[in-house]
Amino acid sequence: MAASGIVIGIDLGGTKILAGAVDEAGAVTHVQRELTHAQDGADAVINRLVGMIDRIRAALDPGTPVAAVSIGVPGGVNIEAGIVDKAPNLRWLNVPLAALLEARTGLPIFLDNDVRVAVLGEHAYGVGRGTQTMIGVWVGTGIGGGIIINGRLHQGSRGVAGEIGHSIVVRKGPQCPCGNIGCIEALASRTSMERDVRQLIKKGMKSKVLERMEKKGRTVISSGVIAWSLERQDPVMVKVFQRAQRALATFTANMVNALDPEVVVFGGGIAERLGEAFVGPIRDQAREKFLSKRDVEKIQIVPTQLKEVAPIAGAAFLARQRLEKRGQVLSVAG
Amino acid sequence: MAASGIVIGIDLGGTKILAGAVDEAGAVTHVQRELTHAQDGADAVINRLVGMIDRIRAALDPGTPVAAVSIGVPGGVNIEAGIVDKAPNLRWLNVPLAALLEARTGLPIFLDNDVRVAVLGEHAYGVGRGTQTMIGVWVGTGIGGGIIINGRLHQGSRGVAGEIGHSIVVRKGPQCPCGNIGCIEALASRTSMERDVRQLIKKGMKSKVLERMEKKGRTVISSGVIAWSLERQDPVMVKVFQRAQRALATFTANMVNALDPEVVVFGGGIAERLGEAFVGPIRDQAREKFLSKRDVEKIQIVPTQLKEVAPIAGAAFLARQRLEKRGQVLSVAG
Repeated sequence: MAASGIVIGIDLGGTKILAGAVDEAGAVTHVQRELTHAQDGADAVINRLVGMIDRIRAALDPGTPVAAVSIGVPGGVNIEAGIVDKAPNLRWLNVPLAALLEARTGLPIFLDNDVRVAVLGEHAYGVGRGTQTMIGVWVGTGIGGGIIINGRLHQGSRGVAGEIGHSIVVRKGPQCPCGNIGCIEALASRTSMERDVRQLIKKGMKSKVLERMEKKGRTVISSGVIAWSLERQDPVMVKVFQRAQRALATFTANMVNALDPEVVVFGGGIAERLGEAFVGPIRDQAREKFLSKRDVEKIQIVPTQLKEVAPIAGAAFLARQRLEKRGQVLSVAG
Repeated sequence: MAASGIVIGIDLGGTKILAGAVDEAGAVTHVQRELTHAQDGADAVINRLVGMIDRIRAALDPGTPVAAVSIGVPGGVNIEAGIVDKAPNLRWLNVPLAALLEARTGLPIFLDNDVRVAVLGEHAYGVGRGTQTMIGVWVGTGIGGGIIINGRLHQGSRGVAGEIGHSIVVRKGPQCPCGNIGCIEALASRTSMERDVRQLIKKGMKSKVLERMEKKGRTVISSGVIAWSLERQDPVMVKVFQRAQRALATFTANMVNALDPEVVVFGGGIAERLGEAFVGPIRDQAREKFLSKRDVEKIQIVPTQLKEVAPIAGAAFLARQRLEKRGQVLSVAG
């Protein structure tokens, strides 16, 4: 078998950019990290990306072939054309990112949605390795996800499958940014938790969450602030967190009853930071709602294993798949 | 190509048995219908099945080869062993139906769950023909279903996928027979509709539903009684029916957002009887909740096309698949 080259995987977030060199086995090295500073505009962000790519290439062993760069983008992407259609967190609209970066780096550039690549990464190299059916639930400012069936990402008839954040689990409740009532995104995203925290404090409940946010210079609640508040058993944070977990448990049970997966994996900042403290109660409550009690313990409901490198590893995996499809040779003589 | 023989498909229900001869294209002929009379015991029911099979064979053109008999059973089935594990509507426990019928008929006998075969039938020969992703929702005394992905019935890691009746869409509400709160089965099955009808009447709402049931000799509400009451705009029935449709619409939107299917098909007595009057409002309300509004009209949300022969056709389809797997030749020289 031929030895394949490196793919540079990038997680382009609204706050920070993470990049790394990913080998064929999914191992991520030479990790680079920068703040995005999206307010500086697309050109400045693209300059930063080029700088990170150049630094990784310079740091690799001389002669190491780089097959491609592959980027997870927080928004809608035209995969074929390599265009970022709409990325609100970046304030980007119709940015031909692939062409621009290809011109600057001379490397093939691939794009996809950040959550999709994270789920793919977790399936290819993380906790989902080798599974046929896996549900990925990424909890962040919103809730996104992906569904692996027969070992591959399920795309659906219009290519929009995996919008699990808009699964409705309650009839009454806060409105989701999507306009509906009762979506898990409206009940369990970081944004929703913050809304509920502020509401309970306004109602007179004692809490140190807002002070902590201020001290840490956060304008929105972060996973770090959530973790800090839970450690101190802040009553507001505990209440809000449990409410979010309850919604996610119902959703998890629904997916297990419908799709009977081997793995349900939770990713995103909260899952990375809190791990079992986040996922444990979701698992326990979900199991109570499984219709079939057979081999319940075989269904893994777990936090991400790859954590912040999941999108990088997944983007690289995707690039390898696409290069193979193109019939391009990824390899030097093995 | 060789011409294949006939498969006798049977829908063994708690109330009635339907059997027919199914050709390779899914056409059902020589339909036989009998009441089950489950209270007479398994032996009597098996005698009835043998009689129906014999009559179909006798009615076929002389020399028509019969490849197998395939039966949809209302309960849990050990497919490999051909045993009905548990069928509450038949009061059966561990009935080795395949072996018993094989001895009596000399034909290979296949079993599977009735809803699974109905969904398979609708996919193979009905409204889902040729689709990659299809959700089947069978609304009867309970709610069952099946999920087709990549053109095949999705089985899941434990083989129990498709338990969509226990999708939870509200937090508060009536308890489901499964023990949970808010399952669509507890909100939209015929049994649940009857519970809600009785409750509203008890509360003093005027309705002719119970009278109609009595007149028709029904101890439980039937699709016919539901249809009759809706035609007369019985206020209780209208209210209860709309409530059920609302729950099914939420569920449909959840599945469309997650799996992006080409078809969502509703089957079972109510869908057979009422068709568009049942499914139309579900479709309209579900569409409002789709996250992606792209090509919304491409996603068909429709009533069963095969109606009561869906399980028969699906059972036959399944038998052909299993015979092929076994490498048995289904055919006479073509």
